[in-house]
Amino acid sequence: MARSSGGRSAISRAVEVLEAFDPSSNELTLTQIAARTGLPMATAHGIVTELIGLGLLERRGRDVILGVRLWELAVRAPGVVGLREIALPHLERVRDRLKQHAQLGILQGGEILYLERLSAPESVVNWTKVGGRIPWYATSSGLVLVADAPPERQDEVLGLPRPRFSVEPHPSSADLRPVLAKVRREGHAVTRGYIHPDATAVAVPIKGPYGHAVASIAVVVPTEGFRAAPVLEVLAPAAHAVSADLKQNYLG
Amino acid sequence: MARSSGGRSAISRAVEVLEAFDPSSNELTLTQIAARTGLPMATAHGIVTELIGLGLLERRGRDVILGVRLWELAVRAPGVVGLREIALPHLERVRDRLKQHAQLGILQGGEILYLERLSAPESVVNWTKVGGRIPWYATSSGLVLVADAPPERQDEVLGLPRPRFSVEPHPSSADLRPVLAKVRREGHAVTRGYIHPDATAVAVPIKGPYGHAVASIAVVVPTEGFRAAPVLEVLAPAAHAVSADLKQNYLG
Repeated sequence: MARSSGGRSAISRAVEVLEAFDPSSNELTLTQIAARTGLPMATAHGIVTELIGLGLLERRGRDVILGVRLWELAVRAPGVVGLREIALPHLERVRDRLKQHAQLGILQGGEILYLERLSAPESVVNWTKVGGRIPWYATSSGLVLVADAPPERQDEVLGLPRPRFSVEPHPSSADLRPVLAKVRREGHAVTRGYIHPDATAVAVPIKGPYGHAVASIAVVVPTEGFRAAPVLEVLAPAAHAVSADLKQNYLG
Repeated sequence: MARSSGGRSAISRAVEVLEAFDPSSNELTLTQIAARTGLPMATAHGIVTELIGLGLLERRGRDVILGVRLWELAVRAPGVVGLREIALPHLERVRDRLKQHAQLGILQGGEILYLERLSAPESVVNWTKVGGRIPWYATSSGLVLVADAPPERQDEVLGLPRPRFSVEPHPSSADLRPVLAKVRREGHAVTRGYIHPDATAVAVPIKGPYGHAVASIAVVVPTEGFRAAPVLEVLAPAAHAVSADLKQNYLG
């Protein structure tokens, strides 16, 4: 690949420009893009112009936004889209029965990436966004997915740095091992007030065709008056149904 | 930008590689990618390797697929994601009341791009896929969106070539003008058996904050026993509600 003086190829610089956008700043000026990527203004301008021509970026007034064309390409990613479509009717049923947020997450590096979040008008406070990430050790989905990962993957994730999120006390690897063993034994994780004191999350694993967890369904419910049993009564059958549909989809 | 001998920049070649994937072929071998892009194998290999390193592509066995990272970037595209999130609860209600497919589409060039499709177990045959496209003149959403577009945009779309889809008889621009005028007057479009004789679609416009249609909600229902009134009774209030939510979101 053609490399710039900075040693970054044209393609990787273009991806850096796309990555300058994040869930909370999805409209940027050229100056902001240059500042966030560390690219000279002229270089940033050239890449932005080219990406606009290709439809991956669009102009919105004086700002630039990620383009519809990028979304259109991305929904062809089978790792996300098949899973999301299979899980969606089951997530809806969970949300309708519990009248609280129901969300679908996968483990990416040391973070949970949320593929879907459905909410009800009555739902409690919730930090999650579709396409947003939260460190795995701060979420019920993360505990479930790491607990159910193959041993070498679990060790790898436990070896990653764990920046302080809003979990108190901050867990060490020694703390987390018995937590993960318990989650694995019980088949679900509960994080009571981890991210906000008013909200408690419960997650269960979705198993892939080879038996390991590939995703997780979680609900976020009020901490006040929380009881796990009625939540799990809804959550566990939903996760089993998604696992069964996935298996049929992959192997059928 | 650095340009190859073929005059295409590194970035545009990378986008061509991403665009080699389509909704019906979302797993490709390197040979298929080279064939679809017209790139030499060595060039295709270099770009694929770099895109895998950046997370935009992933390996799946001997094949390559679009990566989760691409999806994660794309859900930050405000043109799609805000609209989809605002529309989703209303689409669910339409699907639940009519027990048929409810879909959300936008006009992109001369085609309708479907941002969402919700289905019920009882739903009739339906061609639409999330992220899929259908020529505008073959869909109820297309008729509604072109009918409600500003005049210069309407002329532009009518001036595009209209490859034969499965609509018979194939419409000329002269045929389409009175159809569009009627759709605009009535505020909805019905395409009876256009794509499949068993399925009839009905679409209504979602208005943006400036009064033109920015998207459309459509349902696909059985042609047999079709009556427009009970469908519109559900569809029209849903579209109004999305329009109102959009307005609040943009201006509030």
